[in-house]
Amino acid sequence: MPEPIAFLGTLDAEEEADFLAALAEALPEESIRPFRTLDAGAREAVRIAIVANPDPAEVARLPNLAWIQSLWAGVERLVRDLGTGAAPIIRLIDPELARTMAEAVLAWTYYLQRDMPAYRRQQEAGTWRQLAYRPPAETHVGLLGFGALGTAAAERLTQAGFRVAAWSRSPKALPPGVAGFSGADGLPSLLAQSDIVVCLLPLTGETRGLLDAARLAATKPGAGLINFGRGPIVATDALLAALDAGQLSHAVLDVFEVEPLPPGSPLWRHPGVTVLPHISGPTTPRSAAAVVAGNVRAYRETGRIPAAVDVGRGY
Amino acid sequence: MPEPIAFLGTLDAEEEADFLAALAEALPEESIRPFRTLDAGAREAVRIAIVANPDPAEVARLPNLAWIQSLWAGVERLVRDLGTGAAPIIRLIDPELARTMAEAVLAWTYYLQRDMPAYRRQQEAGTWRQLAYRPPAETHVGLLGFGALGTAAAERLTQAGFRVAAWSRSPKALPPGVAGFSGADGLPSLLAQSDIVVCLLPLTGETRGLLDAARLAATKPGAGLINFGRGPIVATDALLAALDAGQLSHAVLDVFEVEPLPPGSPLWRHPGVTVLPHISGPTTPRSAAAVVAGNVRAYRETGRIPAAVDVGRGY
Repeated sequence: MPEPIAFLGTLDAEEEADFLAALAEALPEESIRPFRTLDAGAREAVRIAIVANPDPAEVARLPNLAWIQSLWAGVERLVRDLGTGAAPIIRLIDPELARTMAEAVLAWTYYLQRDMPAYRRQQEAGTWRQLAYRPPAETHVGLLGFGALGTAAAERLTQAGFRVAAWSRSPKALPPGVAGFSGADGLPSLLAQSDIVVCLLPLTGETRGLLDAARLAATKPGAGLINFGRGPIVATDALLAALDAGQLSHAVLDVFEVEPLPPGSPLWRHPGVTVLPHISGPTTPRSAAAVVAGNVRAYRETGRIPAAVDVGRGY
Repeated sequence: MPEPIAFLGTLDAEEEADFLAALAEALPEESIRPFRTLDAGAREAVRIAIVANPDPAEVARLPNLAWIQSLWAGVERLVRDLGTGAAPIIRLIDPELARTMAEAVLAWTYYLQRDMPAYRRQQEAGTWRQLAYRPPAETHVGLLGFGALGTAAAERLTQAGFRVAAWSRSPKALPPGVAGFSGADGLPSLLAQSDIVVCLLPLTGETRGLLDAARLAATKPGAGLINFGRGPIVATDALLAALDAGQLSHAVLDVFEVEPLPPGSPLWRHPGVTVLPHISGPTTPRSAAAVVAGNVRAYRETGRIPAAVDVGRGY
């Protein structure tokens, strides 16, 4: 058996046990051990760390790391915490994640298109009123970000009959039926035509605060917003102002500047906000372990480190 | 121009105007006139009535009706109100209705599968907790009713990766991947295996009270229920008891014994119930008018009355 693989995370006990069990099943030939069980000799030997919100001080105590496998797709916190001197960070590229995220995009697009928040408020008020129905063929959905997740989401939405457009930093090849926008100039055009805006962007220096007061003012009046990307991409104060002004009709937020969302946040109680606890793209231990196993085995066979995050860009 | 067509309905003014405009556009060669504008001679001449919740007393004042075109798909109230002596009743078979209804089935199936009601309750309580995710491939959806609407719904659900089964009064040909159940014996089997039960049945003597205490006790513990069929198919008291006992986790109700749902109904305020004001399959004036126009033109050309409702069975 090769040297042990370290597992570092701040998960609750049940979650850690689930991940360790799935990893043991996917990689029976490896010894995957929680950091706390490794003695000095073992820490010295470790070449691979599998991490889920790790304590950076623990990572620093593994002096011979060749690479770090994240169990999450989003690694901007890891990149920030570990700094540029750390071993290469491998984000989880889980084909199942693209499926679950695309499904979440379709499910919460229906939530807004089918007026579920408004019917909920009507129920609370005891009001029986049929709201005007807008079919998918007349509903424009604008995706911000068009990587693997955006591509999968566009496919689902198009299949369901929605009119789909996508915005990305630089021009991309788009599937048939998807209108493309790119760069700073393209963003207001996409926002102006979208009944529902879905953010799937990673957090980088360029996307932080991207949806600020000026950009939110450029949205179609009464549009809905879904943020499944990262919290700091949307300026919270500007979002609340846009909701209060009716510029936006509703926001579905799965990501926040600070997670868990602090109890004092006004987002919890705003009637135009649906707060979700970061569940749009759930990593299931089984699917994540299968991807990790592929990376570990390729490394054992070839000695090559899987494709890593570009620390400069942050993803 | 042939004799006028009578329009009878108890709609609000805006809705009536929308339907009359759509009908005038779809049938420019006809004169379609609200009942109140017809004098005795015109009432005598009328052969076709287009109706939306009509006053039965007004229908009785059209002595030479050849047929009655409903603007709704559900006509059990019309059948009951007009009795067996009335002219043949033609229900609206709107291909667009199958699409909107199938979309509603998928949208509210996601609502339950993605735990939207539970996350709503968590938000109200300020709780940040990720609930276990169950993918569509492990979620069994059981459809009650497998006519045009059920078939379209099964196709959408299957495409989205759900495990789909269908129950009907008598055995039917089913598309690939859909498990079939039929008759009184088949119903408990379908209920026992379904994580989400979707009722699309018409209201008949056989389906009234079909989901009673005994049948609801046969559901999979913690299952969700969606009723897009007719209110009296589900026994309200038994439903509330099943929700309170945790036998059912949540019910999405779009139809009720009395509509609008009376203010005193406990359904309005039950945390396990989502009340919708009969909006799952919205009839859009344009799509309905296109179907009516086809029926009227075929009648003018051939003198044959479109296929009518079997008053004995009620649909």
